[in-house]
Amino acid sequence: MLSNHLQNGMETAKLLWSRLPTSDAEGQDGVGIGHYKKTDGGTVESLDYEVIENYAYREEQALRGKLYMYYSVCVKWFFALLIGIGTGFAAVFINISVENFAGWKYSLTFNIIQKSYFAGCIIYILFNLALVLSSVYIITHFAPAAAGSGIPEIKGYLNGIDTHGILLFRTLVGKIFGSIGSVGGGLALGKEGPLVHTGACIASLLGQGGSTKYHLSSRWLQVFNSERDRRDLVTCGCAAGVAAAFRAPVGGVLFALEEVTSWWRSQLMWRVFFTSAIVAVVVRTAMGWCKSGKCGHFGSGGFIIWDVSDGQEDYSFMELLPMAVIGVIGGLLGALFNQLTLYITNWRRNYLHKKGNHIKFYCSSKMEYNDLATIFFNTQDDAIRNLFSAKTIHEFSAQSLLTFLVMFYALAVVTFGTAVPAGQFVPGIMIGSTYGRLVGMFVVSFYKRLNIEEGTYALLGAASFLGGSMRMTVSLCVIMVEITNNLKLLPLIMLVLLISKAVGDAFNEGFYEEQARIRGIPLLESRPKYQMRSMTAKDACANQKVVYFPRVVKVSDIVSILRSNMHNGFPVIDHTRNGETLVIGLMLRSHLLVLLQSKVDFQHSPLPCDLRGGSLPIRHNLSEFVKPVSSKGISLEDIHLSRDDLEMYIDLAPFVNPSPYIVPEDMSLSKVYNLFRQLGLRHIFVVPRASRVIGMITRKDLLIEEHEHSGAVELQSTSVRGQKHDKRIRKRNTDGEQPLLDGLLV
Amino acid sequence: MLSNHLQNGMETAKLLWSRLPTSDAEGQDGVGIGHYKKTDGGTVESLDYEVIENYAYREEQALRGKLYMYYSVCVKWFFALLIGIGTGFAAVFINISVENFAGWKYSLTFNIIQKSYFAGCIIYILFNLALVLSSVYIITHFAPAAAGSGIPEIKGYLNGIDTHGILLFRTLVGKIFGSIGSVGGGLALGKEGPLVHTGACIASLLGQGGSTKYHLSSRWLQVFNSERDRRDLVTCGCAAGVAAAFRAPVGGVLFALEEVTSWWRSQLMWRVFFTSAIVAVVVRTAMGWCKSGKCGHFGSGGFIIWDVSDGQEDYSFMELLPMAVIGVIGGLLGALFNQLTLYITNWRRNYLHKKGNHIKFYCSSKMEYNDLATIFFNTQDDAIRNLFSAKTIHEFSAQSLLTFLVMFYALAVVTFGTAVPAGQFVPGIMIGSTYGRLVGMFVVSFYKRLNIEEGTYALLGAASFLGGSMRMTVSLCVIMVEITNNLKLLPLIMLVLLISKAVGDAFNEGFYEEQARIRGIPLLESRPKYQMRSMTAKDACANQKVVYFPRVVKVSDIVSILRSNMHNGFPVIDHTRNGETLVIGLMLRSHLLVLLQSKVDFQHSPLPCDLRGGSLPIRHNLSEFVKPVSSKGISLEDIHLSRDDLEMYIDLAPFVNPSPYIVPEDMSLSKVYNLFRQLGLRHIFVVPRASRVIGMITRKDLLIEEHEHSGAVELQSTSVRGQKHDKRIRKRNTDGEQPLLDGLLV
Repeated sequence: MLSNHLQNGMETAKLLWSRLPTSDAEGQDGVGIGHYKKTDGGTVESLDYEVIENYAYREEQALRGKLYMYYSVCVKWFFALLIGIGTGFAAVFINISVENFAGWKYSLTFNIIQKSYFAGCIIYILFNLALVLSSVYIITHFAPAAAGSGIPEIKGYLNGIDTHGILLFRTLVGKIFGSIGSVGGGLALGKEGPLVHTGACIASLLGQGGSTKYHLSSRWLQVFNSERDRRDLVTCGCAAGVAAAFRAPVGGVLFALEEVTSWWRSQLMWRVFFTSAIVAVVVRTAMGWCKSGKCGHFGSGGFIIWDVSDGQEDYSFMELLPMAVIGVIGGLLGALFNQLTLYITNWRRNYLHKKGNHIKFYCSSKMEYNDLATIFFNTQDDAIRNLFSAKTIHEFSAQSLLTFLVMFYALAVVTFGTAVPAGQFVPGIMIGSTYGRLVGMFVVSFYKRLNIEEGTYALLGAASFLGGSMRMTVSLCVIMVEITNNLKLLPLIMLVLLISKAVGDAFNEGFYEEQARIRGIPLLESRPKYQMRSMTAKDACANQKVVYFPRVVKVSDIVSILRSNMHNGFPVIDHTRNGETLVIGLMLRSHLLVLLQSKVDFQHSPLPCDLRGGSLPIRHNLSEFVKPVSSKGISLEDIHLSRDDLEMYIDLAPFVNPSPYIVPEDMSLSKVYNLFRQLGLRHIFVVPRASRVIGMITRKDLLIEEHEHSGAVELQSTSVRGQKHDKRIRKRNTDGEQPLLDGLLV
Repeated sequence: MLSNHLQNGMETAKLLWSRLPTSDAEGQDGVGIGHYKKTDGGTVESLDYEVIENYAYREEQALRGKLYMYYSVCVKWFFALLIGIGTGFAAVFINISVENFAGWKYSLTFNIIQKSYFAGCIIYILFNLALVLSSVYIITHFAPAAAGSGIPEIKGYLNGIDTHGILLFRTLVGKIFGSIGSVGGGLALGKEGPLVHTGACIASLLGQGGSTKYHLSSRWLQVFNSERDRRDLVTCGCAAGVAAAFRAPVGGVLFALEEVTSWWRSQLMWRVFFTSAIVAVVVRTAMGWCKSGKCGHFGSGGFIIWDVSDGQEDYSFMELLPMAVIGVIGGLLGALFNQLTLYITNWRRNYLHKKGNHIKFYCSSKMEYNDLATIFFNTQDDAIRNLFSAKTIHEFSAQSLLTFLVMFYALAVVTFGTAVPAGQFVPGIMIGSTYGRLVGMFVVSFYKRLNIEEGTYALLGAASFLGGSMRMTVSLCVIMVEITNNLKLLPLIMLVLLISKAVGDAFNEGFYEEQARIRGIPLLESRPKYQMRSMTAKDACANQKVVYFPRVVKVSDIVSILRSNMHNGFPVIDHTRNGETLVIGLMLRSHLLVLLQSKVDFQHSPLPCDLRGGSLPIRHNLSEFVKPVSSKGISLEDIHLSRDDLEMYIDLAPFVNPSPYIVPEDMSLSKVYNLFRQLGLRHIFVVPRASRVIGMITRKDLLIEEHEHSGAVELQSTSVRGQKHDKRIRKRNTDGEQPLLDGLLV
């Protein structure tokens, strides 16, 4: 019924596409589709990373041109600066608050304990309890997404899975104040994970131009239309968090690179590095300011720096064996820790499910903290400093260390997964340095004459436990070196990490991966699964019914199709002159919903719009198509369409992504996986084998000199480029290419 | 003429493909095509990175199975160990040799100079001249590929461009001994670049199982059939080189990551890290051994470590301005250095061209060193140590520093590109620390009261010059911290690097990129060019005539096609039952040459082989298809075919890569670029728009649980997998998907 007009429409549309520049965010189309059922009843949502690459977007880009690109680069760097400053100040604020709370607590307890030992204990317990409960209250009533470490969720976000609410302004506030309560209250946890989350929140809020809900947004900051830019900012935020937590700027960059991101571009590294440097400067400045006593009586800005630079200068070959043993212990205890926290999280969830008590997220009941709060670990930093200390042989007895190890290990396992912001670095360092020191004591008493420092062994133990639990390598190594300020131990730390990671890997996955999995965040690993080798792309979507849209579609059809399935992307097809179908692009559900809501593109005629008015109209502001981080986007139920509306048509051609990635049906699935993962895609079309090859692109074809086409404008006319190509082609032809086999093929 | 049989043959072949597991190296098909004309007349060759993914390979993989995979992982780690040990020993050997030569030289000169000043000078000059000329002789007569830094070539190799001869055994030997001569002879260059090259050579030789030419190969080591594995090994080698040169293992990892590789996988990082750790241990052990005097009288194992740990502890805000000035100076001088070396290299080339004196590679005439050799810089390490030294205010006068700066800068520029192995780090550090110290002296005299160390400024100057010239960021920062062993200056180094890189980027590209370009190594940058946005895939290969092969092809046709063009890949097409053409895969020139040479697949009948004998025969050992690094591969002229041979046929189906990457014709070229670059491809087929979509692959389809299919064998039968898919499909269908628009579309 439409076929007479469609043929012309298609031609016009193709012409238009070929004339238009495309988006600058081609690489990452984003990842994921649909809603994933979380094991605890919640859902995590895949991110709408699909780049808006339709007609309207490209038109806007073309209007803005190269100058706009420079502007957006400047804004990116400015945002990197702001993230650094913001995260640095957040870290300083948390640290000063914790230190001041701890100071008040100790001075109060000390005053009372001199009168009555029992009253002092009570006061101490009550003080800690108040802090911890305030943290629990903030989390459960105000910002449930701020519970826990946050790193698995951020990792998921950067892998393409959006856990709802993790990057909101309220989560940021909850995380900061919750951390103060939980760390100040002396729980067996640290503030590193929360700081990473804090950095990511700040970055994300900047990326969307402020918090819309709290009217803190600014119009001129909303320059980031692609999810890729936001993801880059969040990566900067993660690095800033680590840099602030450990005062380890290089470690922060490496952490973001190794542990958090799924995609990495070398351009990004430079910006991440800048953010980390800013954090380091901010923190250093604040500490200098605190030294003059302006941060309150007790606030000296206690950042994690355990200087062991006066430790062991040298090591002998005989020591490598006990050090390897530390590595093995670290791997075993770390893997056990991962497994136990997994069980604990599972058990909590089941227990709560049975009671029917659906507190949001993975938080347990409030009263569970009473006993924990009675254990005081507020001197964690000091304890670690003592454990690492060099010239203090036999400062600790083996028995007390062993008791401490068992108790603290159990506490760290139990505390994990409770409704407070929790970092796993400091507890890990505590556990590791305890058994490390134990081994060191053994070595000292075994090789009597050697110049062995137990503190060095404690440091290696800490590295081994973190390696065995988190399975980070380079970043952890650099962080350990940066926080201990001792480069000479680097090869030893490397050795221990190698062993502990290898041992841990034999048992289970890394801590963050395990936690992400139990939270229902389906991370795409960097490697395809083994069985994918024997599968093809067709197998992966075998017999899956593809729902098409025609180019011009009735509104009522759109509604019924959207209602009938949960797909997030639909191929749009059109007819050629000779009646064959042709896939003209990919239409996203979210963009369809925007079109339905705005109604401006509705038309009475079932003809393509370019047949009626000449050029394609642009009635949309690009930002309409971008889903804000803080909302769930438009739902079909929110859109009200009259009966007249339903009878109208929409021409989808200006809104499709005209060239989604395609793979032939019998491509190996692991090859498809790599394509999907490495380019960060969200949809791949599986198409039949081609009947012919139009051309082959090789390195030669992609080596275009910039100066050949210094102006960007004339490029859009094919005639200019034509000449250049002709030359190249003539050369190829004169090479003596003969249509030798053409006869054979017909 | 063949069409009645082809239809069945195609069906059988498709069936076979679908049953077979595919290679484990799907991601990187390799990069590049053809030969690139070098500006000085030589050629660089693109690497044959195309993964062998044809029938024979997959069959072999299937036979070997999962156990083989574990074996190959073990071999990879063992090789990483060997690379670390090898590079470590090479570095130790070079260092000890240089130190001993320097020692003999000084003791001899000192002895003679006490008798006659003039005779001493002559002896000193002659000694240096002998060393430098021996290095020149080695390079020009034995290993021309060992000249220069080697880093641009290695960078090119990892980007997919093979400069002939850079990874040979003779190059390795030439590099090691050439470095000893050039560094020992006191030229204004260092041994870091050469060590990176050395590490890469060791890695590459291990990867191909030893040197075939010198009969040092071992059969059981030849397990790496894909270029990707070799590239990974070379990456390890680069990291090992940096780790050995600076005793900076983390810096080495980062250098490999940031500067050298074009592709990076997180799995690789871990192995690179291991290699670096091994190097650190080897170097440390050797140095410990040398301390006992066993390395000759003068060999104390002088590795680059300039300890400034007793330097400036703190810095004030007022100092940030002079530090920023250092950054700017570094950016300017670095960019100027890049430009001048570029001119020098160009000038040398033109000059030599005019004289018609074609010495291989970019080496100049021998006599050019006489005047250089008269300048003695053998105490470079000591000079740097002095420049960095902390408690030595006013040790140098401003005039002497300025004179030294100008002279050394000129010398470094002139020396660059001569026919000796040359590193640019040490000269860069020399230049940078000189003007850094100058600025430091100015600051000291300006802010009189502050606790300012000139040594700190010298260090920052060194960082700024390297940043301005090489444009590395994170890796350079870590290397600077590791060689100076002072973590406290990290934020300052970061700041200076940020500024100097930004300033330098305003003028030209980084040193290695510029050098790679002038050597005719066409690196694919990480970003697509701006004008690619307005081009489509079709534009890139516009009107380019594609040369097809039919499935069964006459030998004489193959020969004439191969002779008629320089293409490296050819689409193979077949006919379906209804006579339509169908692209069945990509055939590589190199594989065709192997087939022609071996002749075992020649057949008399023009029918597909599976129609005649049932299953496809495997007559080839996989290793036949792998081009050794050290040879240029088979050339068509080497193959002798009789008249009978030419009349025979080959069925190409078992040898094609059945699923090369495809892009639709109107995909934006920058999108294609990202695909090509990020997956490291070599050929992309540009195909017409698809007429239909078989399915859409989304994240959900790629989240297959490992344990669902723990055994690998049963996966190959489609019936087993069928059931699982059916379940999924049924679920999808019950979602209520309606074929609503099917009527519209027909």
